[in-house]
Amino acid sequence: MEKTKVAIVGMGTVGAGVAKLLLDHGDRTARHAGRTMWLERVVVRDTKKTRRVDLPSGVLTDNLSDVTSDPEIKVVAQLIGGLEPARSIMLELLESGKDVVTANKALLAEHGGELFDRARDLGRSIAFEASVAGGIPIITSISQCLSANAITSLRGILNGTSNFIVTRMEESGAAFEDCVREAQELGYAEADPTMDVDGSDAAQKLAILSHLAFGVRIHWADIPRQGINDIETADIRYADEMGYRMKLLATAQLTDSGLQMRVAPMLIRKGKPLAEVRGAFNAVSVVGDAVGRVFFHGQGAGQMPTASAVVADMIDLAVGRTQLTFRTLELFSQAEARVEVCPSDEALSRFYFRFTVDDHPGVLGQMASILGGHKISIASVIQHEREGDAPVVPLVVMTDLANESAAAAALQEINELPTVSRGGVRFRVTD
Amino acid sequence: MEKTKVAIVGMGTVGAGVAKLLLDHGDRTARHAGRTMWLERVVVRDTKKTRRVDLPSGVLTDNLSDVTSDPEIKVVAQLIGGLEPARSIMLELLESGKDVVTANKALLAEHGGELFDRARDLGRSIAFEASVAGGIPIITSISQCLSANAITSLRGILNGTSNFIVTRMEESGAAFEDCVREAQELGYAEADPTMDVDGSDAAQKLAILSHLAFGVRIHWADIPRQGINDIETADIRYADEMGYRMKLLATAQLTDSGLQMRVAPMLIRKGKPLAEVRGAFNAVSVVGDAVGRVFFHGQGAGQMPTASAVVADMIDLAVGRTQLTFRTLELFSQAEARVEVCPSDEALSRFYFRFTVDDHPGVLGQMASILGGHKISIASVIQHEREGDAPVVPLVVMTDLANESAAAAALQEINELPTVSRGGVRFRVTD
Repeated sequence: MEKTKVAIVGMGTVGAGVAKLLLDHGDRTARHAGRTMWLERVVVRDTKKTRRVDLPSGVLTDNLSDVTSDPEIKVVAQLIGGLEPARSIMLELLESGKDVVTANKALLAEHGGELFDRARDLGRSIAFEASVAGGIPIITSISQCLSANAITSLRGILNGTSNFIVTRMEESGAAFEDCVREAQELGYAEADPTMDVDGSDAAQKLAILSHLAFGVRIHWADIPRQGINDIETADIRYADEMGYRMKLLATAQLTDSGLQMRVAPMLIRKGKPLAEVRGAFNAVSVVGDAVGRVFFHGQGAGQMPTASAVVADMIDLAVGRTQLTFRTLELFSQAEARVEVCPSDEALSRFYFRFTVDDHPGVLGQMASILGGHKISIASVIQHEREGDAPVVPLVVMTDLANESAAAAALQEINELPTVSRGGVRFRVTD
Repeated sequence: MEKTKVAIVGMGTVGAGVAKLLLDHGDRTARHAGRTMWLERVVVRDTKKTRRVDLPSGVLTDNLSDVTSDPEIKVVAQLIGGLEPARSIMLELLESGKDVVTANKALLAEHGGELFDRARDLGRSIAFEASVAGGIPIITSISQCLSANAITSLRGILNGTSNFIVTRMEESGAAFEDCVREAQELGYAEADPTMDVDGSDAAQKLAILSHLAFGVRIHWADIPRQGINDIETADIRYADEMGYRMKLLATAQLTDSGLQMRVAPMLIRKGKPLAEVRGAFNAVSVVGDAVGRVFFHGQGAGQMPTASAVVADMIDLAVGRTQLTFRTLELFSQAEARVEVCPSDEALSRFYFRFTVDDHPGVLGQMASILGGHKISIASVIQHEREGDAPVVPLVVMTDLANESAAAAALQEINELPTVSRGGVRFRVTD
């Protein structure tokens, strides 16, 4: 049987999972690839460190040139996190004639343009299924299986950590900080969970998917985003009362004024597949003009789900499938954008507002007339009787479709009312 | 730009959809294929018939040899239903050097062995994403994206018509026959809905998926199956009361005694993704040992969702991706089976029984001791007070795991009790 020599750079959690699949399950990779996937080298910084995977002798090295100088190694899984030295190593691998697999979405989101250009110039390919939504085959689906469609909408839960935290807030009624701590204890959140909870990680993944699906050109940091740290348990409770759940959604929707993109906690109607995604899972809902809506759900992170996607990419490169796809990908391509990004103040959405107001007659009326003045119509209202002798009560308003700038202006105007004792919060609502 | 000439044979609903995508959306197919997908010929039986799609002049023909004798036509979508002449045309196309796309699962389920062998001998490829679950990319996912996994379980709602009917029975409380009529009026069911409601259509699709996922060798007609015509509204009501929904599921699960396969109405716990699939949709839940569970949901039939999959397949053949995948597929291959089918009387399952019994003391005791005699333990029971002066009452029993032959024997023994006035019904229960 033909043999393709492969290598791994970086032996963290995912690297160990990839080595395990290649070493312990050579039969299945050979069956799918029609050739032996032969793990020739594993490059690490420190060869003395104890490893959780037993590697055949002679495989481990701390010298990248053992890979770059070996012309028989065709495919390399580059599994180092962060931006540097990940970027330099990736360039070196491409320049030495390797096709490269990566799971590093931060690297792609930041340096994708440079890396993809270099790969194209050199006639090499980069495979990156694992960079978004782990084991869910969303990259292949968008770039290959849905190729007869114009994608009109893409919505996803792309960060399992924040979905776990929000689910726990909903289930336990505990505050954001407590649920973050729980996620850290269970290993779902890192010591510094900023990128997960503030929506940055999801924005990086949304940028990659939107490039592919819409041919838009946007840097992830330019996608408007709001973190889950803005969510209070009260909002989850009111959402529930109105028939919605709160989720950190990454959305890109084609509208008449361009592609409307956002990462934010949104209220989504119960029973909708995305609303029912619980815990540390990922999900993506894609609408194509021919296929209609297709929904995917699975593990978006973790050692083996990520390794599953990396090894599938290695096989695709070994047999030559990725190479055929890579040259037509609209990711970080020099082709002109097919779609412009909708100016964010023109974005349309339904809104959820929660205010803390004096328990006086007339407050709701004032608020309603301010909203009306901004042409925002009210879809529903919740005001409960005040508890005990609290001088203030929460007032929750859900609106019909309104544009971003009108909603922001109305919120500011309402916040300035003397009867509003604490600044209002605002979330978007989606169907 | 390079040009790949393609043809369509058969201009029914799906054929018209495929023509529409190729003719009206050449820009997007060209973008994904990196070449123009040029519709050179459309072969129909009767060129005089009015068409819903305007074809360029000179494209329509009633002569298959206009395609087979043109060496420039590389890829053909063969979209004729039924077994003949679909089979002969497919062979003729392969022999004339074409790569072929089909959406015809009945043809594959019946003659797949012959067609795939012929294609392999001739160095040609067959693409068939549209043959199972329409627009859901399940074939690509199993044969490409999950290739690093051993698949351990595959469960699906693979027949949208029967799922529509069961959903309507649940929503409206109407009887099976009425819901079939409604499905026919809405165009979801054919005049003769037998293949849909008796599980044959789902079994054909399950056979294809299981060949690919498990390397099992089974003819679809040998998969044990039960139709939805066995479901009474009472069963849906009791299932609901116990926290379950009734669904026609196609399942293949790896067990110690082999691959356990079945198409049958099953009770599945509410809240599970498959339980929440409503209406004429399809869904598939796949478990791989590395990736965990991945769930797909979308439109399993209909003109444009099916055409979406067919055109993606045509592009994959035009660029050469399918050819790379096809030679390693475990579908209708001559390779030995990797997995044996579990003898059906050894299959393990939980069961739901409903009996109609005399309202006498001691009936439940008799029943429980018969079940106990067959080593079947009871998980839950529903017996409501009798309504009015009805002399009989329904008695519903849900069991723990039991094997098929024990459950069948117990049912027969219970049916013979003088206190059981009407033969019991039996369904399987899944988590």
